[in-house]
Amino acid sequence: MSKPLIFISNDDGIWAPGISALVEVSKNFGEVVVVAPDKPQSGQGHAVTIKEPLRLTRVQAFDGVESWECTGTPADSVKLAKDKILRGRKVDLVLSGINHGNNASINIIYSGTMSAAMEGALEGFNSIGFSLDDFSHNADFSAAKVYAGKIIEMSLTNKFKTPFLLNVNFPRLKTEDIKGIKVCRQAKGKWVEEFMDAVDPRGVPYYWMTGKFENLEPEAVDTDLWAIKNGYVSIVPSCFDLTKHSIIKDLNFFTNE
Amino acid sequence: MSKPLIFISNDDGIWAPGISALVEVSKNFGEVVVVAPDKPQSGQGHAVTIKEPLRLTRVQAFDGVESWECTGTPADSVKLAKDKILRGRKVDLVLSGINHGNNASINIIYSGTMSAAMEGALEGFNSIGFSLDDFSHNADFSAAKVYAGKIIEMSLTNKFKTPFLLNVNFPRLKTEDIKGIKVCRQAKGKWVEEFMDAVDPRGVPYYWMTGKFENLEPEAVDTDLWAIKNGYVSIVPSCFDLTKHSIIKDLNFFTNE
Repeated sequence: MSKPLIFISNDDGIWAPGISALVEVSKNFGEVVVVAPDKPQSGQGHAVTIKEPLRLTRVQAFDGVESWECTGTPADSVKLAKDKILRGRKVDLVLSGINHGNNASINIIYSGTMSAAMEGALEGFNSIGFSLDDFSHNADFSAAKVYAGKIIEMSLTNKFKTPFLLNVNFPRLKTEDIKGIKVCRQAKGKWVEEFMDAVDPRGVPYYWMTGKFENLEPEAVDTDLWAIKNGYVSIVPSCFDLTKHSIIKDLNFFTNE
Repeated sequence: MSKPLIFISNDDGIWAPGISALVEVSKNFGEVVVVAPDKPQSGQGHAVTIKEPLRLTRVQAFDGVESWECTGTPADSVKLAKDKILRGRKVDLVLSGINHGNNASINIIYSGTMSAAMEGALEGFNSIGFSLDDFSHNADFSAAKVYAGKIIEMSLTNKFKTPFLLNVNFPRLKTEDIKGIKVCRQAKGKWVEEFMDAVDPRGVPYYWMTGKFENLEPEAVDTDLWAIKNGYVSIVPSCFDLTKHSIIKDLNFFTNE
């Protein structure tokens, strides 16, 4: 049996410590190919570059791993990889991350990490976005690596029937303090108090995004935010069908003219 | 009873014909406030600006309508509007568009238009993204205006119990050729053959996103793509809970270590 092919991207850029950690773990399970942005792309959501050309440059970012940096967004990187680097090869697992900062709850919609994973899922590949609940550049990825390894191994060996897209978040804890893995749903949450006001040297006001995240259901034990807060690794199966199927019938008043 | 408050943004920028069309229609139904990007932002997805300051400038973009241009993305524009312009006012309807180009099917995930509407929905307001199936700057918005008016009126008068987020797409047809409105689900679709290859004047290769959209279920009559192709205005109720609830239990193998 040939080695599994694992494709990796991220949104913090190919030179971030988080993607190094993920490449290192993934090498134990198969052949790894990396195409990732050449610079940090946090908060890019599912942006794609349509008005400018994109470039791919082969780089020596990781020992013994084919690696390319891309001038575009995370979604651009995966699309380019599919067309220009992987060229029709069957990918066994698409991974994104490990992101510096958590992407639980509503943060999935702003997340470049998850947009890269989603592009993999759109191609029909099992895809996982990994994020650590620590924004710092020097975050400690050691526990995340242990659990990412477990999840990668289980993903490659389990014959789950349909392709999955997983949003995985690691708590900021040592390996021995993590209680285990929980499969959850996305918690309801939102950002409040979002901007700092200031005035520039010319006297012109400006605003800078900041904000406080609010968990709108802190008691709900089946959510990703609860899991992370209580010492678990959270896995949320995610999708790209944004239809709210449950209210289609209720909206039929729109068709009565 | 006070006039309804209608907030409008878009992703083609405040100077695009599509938002003018939407403002003109909306003025018939209430007080309109506009905060929109100062330049085109197509394909920005749900990008937010976190590493740079943002600015708001009051402009005279529309007769008798409070209007501001924002240096950021569509999502930034709505977030800034909420905190700095609307400042806690109850909004009766958040509108985005009318986008030059359709945002049906999977295009919702790349759509700045829908990210602006989604930010409105996150605040608990009824929110609608409008898009016309015509990418050109000089697209004819006359039929879109007629149907946008109907949908805005029904949205303001119907007392639907929970806030909704609608992805509305107009076919490229004259008013008299439109057959009506259909409430649908998002069609399964994807982009293929995505990049043009070329070589720059220095001999370095580059790639430019292009691609062909493929409807993966052209026969499904309950989808947005079918509706638009067959002469209907499509309305897809959408959401920002990306959890694939149906497979949470199936993934419990991840918790057996």
